[in-house]
Amino acid sequence: MAALRVGTRAVEGRFQASNGGGGGGGGMAPSSRLVAAHREAKPRSSHSAAPWKLPRRRGGAMPLWRVAVFASVALNVATLALLLHHYATSPPHHYHDAGLTTRSSDAAAHRRARTASSMAPSTGKPAVTTDSVINLDHGDPTMFEEFWRETGDAAEVVIPGWQTMSYFSDVTNVCWFLEPELDRQVRRLHRVVGNAAVDGYHVLVGTGSTQLFMAALYALAPDHSAAAAGDAGEPISVVSTAPYYSSYPAVTDFLRSGLFRWAGDADAFGGDSYIELVCSPNNPDGAIREAVLDSKTGNGRTVHDLAYYWPQYTPITKRAAHDIMLFTVSKSTGHAGTRIGWALVKDRAIARKMTKFVELNTIGVSKDSQMRAAKVLAAVSDGYERRPEQTKETKTATPPRLFDFGRRKMVERWSMLRAAVAASGIFSLPEETSGFCNFTKDVEDCAGFLRGHKILTRSGAQFGADARYVRVSMLDRDDAYDIFINRLSSLK
Amino acid sequence: MAALRVGTRAVEGRFQASNGGGGGGGGMAPSSRLVAAHREAKPRSSHSAAPWKLPRRRGGAMPLWRVAVFASVALNVATLALLLHHYATSPPHHYHDAGLTTRSSDAAAHRRARTASSMAPSTGKPAVTTDSVINLDHGDPTMFEEFWRETGDAAEVVIPGWQTMSYFSDVTNVCWFLEPELDRQVRRLHRVVGNAAVDGYHVLVGTGSTQLFMAALYALAPDHSAAAAGDAGEPISVVSTAPYYSSYPAVTDFLRSGLFRWAGDADAFGGDSYIELVCSPNNPDGAIREAVLDSKTGNGRTVHDLAYYWPQYTPITKRAAHDIMLFTVSKSTGHAGTRIGWALVKDRAIARKMTKFVELNTIGVSKDSQMRAAKVLAAVSDGYERRPEQTKETKTATPPRLFDFGRRKMVERWSMLRAAVAASGIFSLPEETSGFCNFTKDVEDCAGFLRGHKILTRSGAQFGADARYVRVSMLDRDDAYDIFINRLSSLK
Repeated sequence: MAALRVGTRAVEGRFQASNGGGGGGGGMAPSSRLVAAHREAKPRSSHSAAPWKLPRRRGGAMPLWRVAVFASVALNVATLALLLHHYATSPPHHYHDAGLTTRSSDAAAHRRARTASSMAPSTGKPAVTTDSVINLDHGDPTMFEEFWRETGDAAEVVIPGWQTMSYFSDVTNVCWFLEPELDRQVRRLHRVVGNAAVDGYHVLVGTGSTQLFMAALYALAPDHSAAAAGDAGEPISVVSTAPYYSSYPAVTDFLRSGLFRWAGDADAFGGDSYIELVCSPNNPDGAIREAVLDSKTGNGRTVHDLAYYWPQYTPITKRAAHDIMLFTVSKSTGHAGTRIGWALVKDRAIARKMTKFVELNTIGVSKDSQMRAAKVLAAVSDGYERRPEQTKETKTATPPRLFDFGRRKMVERWSMLRAAVAASGIFSLPEETSGFCNFTKDVEDCAGFLRGHKILTRSGAQFGADARYVRVSMLDRDDAYDIFINRLSSLK
Repeated sequence: MAALRVGTRAVEGRFQASNGGGGGGGGMAPSSRLVAAHREAKPRSSHSAAPWKLPRRRGGAMPLWRVAVFASVALNVATLALLLHHYATSPPHHYHDAGLTTRSSDAAAHRRARTASSMAPSTGKPAVTTDSVINLDHGDPTMFEEFWRETGDAAEVVIPGWQTMSYFSDVTNVCWFLEPELDRQVRRLHRVVGNAAVDGYHVLVGTGSTQLFMAALYALAPDHSAAAAGDAGEPISVVSTAPYYSSYPAVTDFLRSGLFRWAGDADAFGGDSYIELVCSPNNPDGAIREAVLDSKTGNGRTVHDLAYYWPQYTPITKRAAHDIMLFTVSKSTGHAGTRIGWALVKDRAIARKMTKFVELNTIGVSKDSQMRAAKVLAAVSDGYERRPEQTKETKTATPPRLFDFGRRKMVERWSMLRAAVAASGIFSLPEETSGFCNFTKDVEDCAGFLRGHKILTRSGAQFGADARYVRVSMLDRDDAYDIFINRLSSLK
């Protein structure tokens, strides 16, 4: 905990001041919700009936950003202690592996010069100026670039022309296209963090967790092919408690599959044959979620989307051990461009069917990105595991610690956001002001309003909620986030 | 042409001897067909009625492997001349970039040592022994590893930890997740080879061409969503002339989409609203194909799968310029593990819809693999384009030439296969012996028969053809192919 305070004390101070000591908090959620609504006084009860349905969350009565500040004081001590007990004094992002520095820096510089001259990789969204449109609609995790720029060779991969040309990675594995090294590093990191059980689980790799989400639907849908050909069995209902991740309905339905069909809010669902998607912490509101449906016929299945169940976003309170759990490097390490997700799957038959989906959809998953993801995950684990060669002499060369960096940034950004919201006076962050904020005119379309100020966000309507809310990505680069904050503060 | 003979003269000599001077030929097809059938005399007409329907091919009356040998003499002079006119005397796979050799070799050795010690990439299918099961069912293109092992740094990529973390590659492009460098190298290679038009086309990237195949079906299917919600418009029929690639039916139907549905052999199709898949050279039989259906209502669409339309497999006789053309590095350069395919698409609205498919399916495509594919394609183009810095002094440092390597290997392997078939006496290669071969007993299941001899192949039944045929992949590693040939020769 001391470690966390080193990085965040000043920030927490700022936050507490801006929050008036009301006990609200830290903030580890991946995105924030703003609401711009009626100046007319509303009964307080209207807030608890808000479509975000915050009180329904079983993990506690508070939204995640409030939980999270408590977390930074008490709740997550156990987990964080595990993660941080090797913390040393040097700042994480001035790390160099002492033993290799000279030679490898030369080599690295040489390589980079050569690579840069011959091949120019993209840099993502263009750099912003104070006049730019700020796009916080997508959760583009470029916030983490800063961290990885400072890790040097630790997360660099070199791929010779002849490497991993085959379709196959391990013909003895259920997931025959999974690189064994990625399998190892996924299991290692979960053991280090303690956020998910891996023993007795199959690891499957996908082109992002989106592909594995589809694979899970495919694997869990009843197999009508066993019946007569052309059997018109009804597609199974896919549900999730609102507000749900805006991509769930689109990804479920875009091919109009006869196997599964989006059926909306899990709370409004009356059937007994379903696939319930449980996103926890939830996108968009950061709530800790558990399944809300309970199948009496045994035809109900759950898929746990744990993309944000990492220490930079939320306290790790228990080792999740569900039937199907989805993760992705996009959110855990910030490497969205590598498109690597993984699933931890208990049942072998389900693992086989999910693998079959990926085989039919894309004949496996990029091995280059699998090797890169393995390297990146290894670098994260290295940050929290004492390595045998770390003697007293080299102890100052502390490896970079991703979750520390991530938490510090999230605390800082939530603090800035709250200050901006306070300065503006026309928005609220749910539960911070215990109700709707005042505004000079009715704003029924908060995303539209912000778009008029060149801030792109995602409307609550896309999450099965209310258009007076928007989701704001918290994971963009500093420059874009700073301009967003300044612009938000100036809205009156 | 002289250049080609340097590499293949000895091989051609061997082949011609084994073929008895009958004018059969070279062989550029990606896979070969074997048939083990009745010893009972069959009328010759039974061959032309064979389910492979060889004579239907409009590109000529001969199967591709026969066309190809003429090609090596005459037909492809224009194209090959273009490709080979910079050919120099040193063997292609002893190339080193003279200017960089010393320093970069050191760096490369250092890097490889480091990479190898920290991360062990997979090697694909395990190494084989004379007693192994030989799996030639999948078209795993490991044959090309030998070539890329000799290219040194030319196709090596180095990816720092912070690179291409964003979801986005170029927000101004229709295909917003396409790396601009891959776009450039795709266009450059098509211009060098002359196999497809690129001006006026959109380049789209996919996780292998399989994903783009699905994207094309999605984009070409009628948009029922414009009509009433829940509209039960019939799925559009997807057809291809038999024998067709065995994955087409499975990939089309596995999600039981309401948008498109597999409808089998294009020749047997009677409707007027369809998507016709034209695979040319065709998988499995190497035939040069054109669309066979002609829509009267304007509701017919075609997708051209040109995965094998490269000089190592077939003569490049014209610059293809169809509405949608699919390519993949799996077959063009042998990098199946990178899972990179691309589409050349004329119509902007179709390109948008295909992009939308990839967005919903996997939120883009691995940028690491895109950068690697760009580097690999650049290395191929470099082999055939004179570069400005190539003065007389460095001219002997000929860059490696992929298509030369590929052609040489294919000629060699077809020659070995024909010799083995002749030695065995129980198989035929279609049109080589003008009919069914003799065999001591009826073999209705050729794949099953070969499986009994630990040779895994893909049955003709999977291609909409006859189980007495099998497809044999020609692209495996030398050791596996050699064992296959020896084992085949010994079957009596």
